[in-house]
Amino acid sequence: MIYLDNSATSYPKPQSVIRAVEFCLKNLSANPGRSGHKASLAASHALEQARLTAAELLSANRDDVFFMLNCTDALSCAIFGLLKPGDHVITTVFEHNSVLRPLEMLRKQDKITFDCALPGPDGRITAGTIDALRRKNTAMVIVNHISNVCGVKCETEEIYGYCMQNGIVFCLDAAQSAGCETLRADMADIICMPGHKGLLGPMGSGLMYIAPDVNVLPLRVGGTGSQSESLDQPVFRPDRYESGTQALPAIIGLEAGIKTVMGHEEEICRREKRLAQLLTDGLESIKGVNVLSPHKVQSGVVLFNVRDIDSRRISYLLDRDFDIATRAGYHCAPLAHKYLGTMSQGGVRASVGYANSAEDICAAVAAVEAIARSE
Amino acid sequence: MIYLDNSATSYPKPQSVIRAVEFCLKNLSANPGRSGHKASLAASHALEQARLTAAELLSANRDDVFFMLNCTDALSCAIFGLLKPGDHVITTVFEHNSVLRPLEMLRKQDKITFDCALPGPDGRITAGTIDALRRKNTAMVIVNHISNVCGVKCETEEIYGYCMQNGIVFCLDAAQSAGCETLRADMADIICMPGHKGLLGPMGSGLMYIAPDVNVLPLRVGGTGSQSESLDQPVFRPDRYESGTQALPAIIGLEAGIKTVMGHEEEICRREKRLAQLLTDGLESIKGVNVLSPHKVQSGVVLFNVRDIDSRRISYLLDRDFDIATRAGYHCAPLAHKYLGTMSQGGVRASVGYANSAEDICAAVAAVEAIARSE
Repeated sequence: MIYLDNSATSYPKPQSVIRAVEFCLKNLSANPGRSGHKASLAASHALEQARLTAAELLSANRDDVFFMLNCTDALSCAIFGLLKPGDHVITTVFEHNSVLRPLEMLRKQDKITFDCALPGPDGRITAGTIDALRRKNTAMVIVNHISNVCGVKCETEEIYGYCMQNGIVFCLDAAQSAGCETLRADMADIICMPGHKGLLGPMGSGLMYIAPDVNVLPLRVGGTGSQSESLDQPVFRPDRYESGTQALPAIIGLEAGIKTVMGHEEEICRREKRLAQLLTDGLESIKGVNVLSPHKVQSGVVLFNVRDIDSRRISYLLDRDFDIATRAGYHCAPLAHKYLGTMSQGGVRASVGYANSAEDICAAVAAVEAIARSE
Repeated sequence: MIYLDNSATSYPKPQSVIRAVEFCLKNLSANPGRSGHKASLAASHALEQARLTAAELLSANRDDVFFMLNCTDALSCAIFGLLKPGDHVITTVFEHNSVLRPLEMLRKQDKITFDCALPGPDGRITAGTIDALRRKNTAMVIVNHISNVCGVKCETEEIYGYCMQNGIVFCLDAAQSAGCETLRADMADIICMPGHKGLLGPMGSGLMYIAPDVNVLPLRVGGTGSQSESLDQPVFRPDRYESGTQALPAIIGLEAGIKTVMGHEEEICRREKRLAQLLTDGLESIKGVNVLSPHKVQSGVVLFNVRDIDSRRISYLLDRDFDIATRAGYHCAPLAHKYLGTMSQGGVRASVGYANSAEDICAAVAAVEAIARSE
């Protein structure tokens, strides 16, 4: 199989990740942070090491980094936990349903309002495009770092500066960038990340950073193993955001994934962009193929269609006849497809990862060419 | 090590569980329900098989069983997702902070009120003890099936009958009973379960059942891989409650755990109770030991203290000198300790599991005897 669906989850997982999960299941099977016996303390120690690794990845304090179920879990926590009745939110047309659906739910409950920024003439979301939508009650700006549909990268530095100047909380959805771009705690007030994409951890792992001065209610509330005698959720971190038994095998696996990529993000980014550029150039040379992502790639995500053929048909043929894994349809991001004009046929997304080679890309280009010719 | 901390998490995990997680990481690494290629379809198929297994465990429809991060995740979903401003809740003094803290948070926000039932003279929570607290606006009754502090079992059948007669939603916290007691969908409107305790799955797995006619808002909202073109969370199940990438390795591991226990719950329950009774009888024979759980055990959980010595000291000595793992303190259930009169010293909890033997229990009794003599 040629796997070009890394935006859904990275594949294959490094051996170190698989071994770490196995090690945890066999040797760290007690509940961390609950009991005082050696087995529980060993699990707590391992959890703490994983937290320090995650904090190092983000240049963050260990108190401000939380383990979550997935990126959606982190985004729901950010949105439901921060917003108050009457708030206004600015987000973008590139957002995933993990941002749009919580906002739409709150809007339908008459709690908040929100607007979606369109990109400027260069196809990017900037502080200017955000500012045009600003209201007096704008409390939060949420943007995805890299679009999971067309791979466009947003100007986070400029947007965060704008938000800081205007007292607006800036939340970064790093679903596609974590592990493929250098992320730092000083890039946003809140950063939400999956563990199983660019960070190469197992499915069932996610990370969240919340700046110390930002007050977000936790999504889950309950036992933390701390202040057991109190009916109040602890206000100190990380306990405030981590209730219930931790997903230790997934977390230990994620730690191994982070260690694989940490410090190499720029190299990974360059490599993935080089392959994505090769794919884009190849696809653009095929008659009938329409590349919908930028000509000069900004990430490893490439979106295309073949004439007006349903994207699912193309993705199906790539899988059936060439064993090439891509994802068709709307990629849980309907407004991005509306903006790109692909609401009728969706798009074929090829997303490269750390394990892909130029050979994979050439095979994919040849396969699309053959399909474009025969269909 | 003699592991008597199964109420925190079961140990060791069966080989079949470890192998299932490994298999998933190596062979089912694509994202289920997202793409149409063979690898994603294989992952979707595996997820569906796991759901069917979980549904079979509960004699439930596959649409009504949801995979969660842990039991706390499920309970937060039930409490935050069901209750409306003005509602009243009846729960019990035996509850875990995973129930009490969400309720207390809502109470402090002036959204709800709640009362905690005390057990009757026989030490049990019954419909009568619940009814005494009923108000016109009582919308929900939440009880734990088996106390994680002292192992008392509640009369679920009687309570659910009472709730049905009075139009109150009955939520069962099966944290300690899942895998050790037969659970059926017709036992409650909502059942919340950890995957990693009696069901023998990995930490990072949980299950939730919601009856078809009970309307609970999801805790997480976002991408489901379904109705991608819509900004509204799907209302159909199970998608409504499962947003973001599934924790597939944990779920596949949980499935293997469920298969180990399913159909054997009564046998497991008998065995654990026999060992817990042996432990109780042994501890009661030691001078200075005060057993706080019922003389005639109702589950595998036994709570005790040695004179007025801090429970953490006893648990520490059991670990240090005898390599016996127990849990001291308050077990995230402060009101239970208040009721038992152990708020000053906490309690030592020994919780037996499927892997314990009579030899383990005899060694534990001898160890407590030695500590009681020397301290």
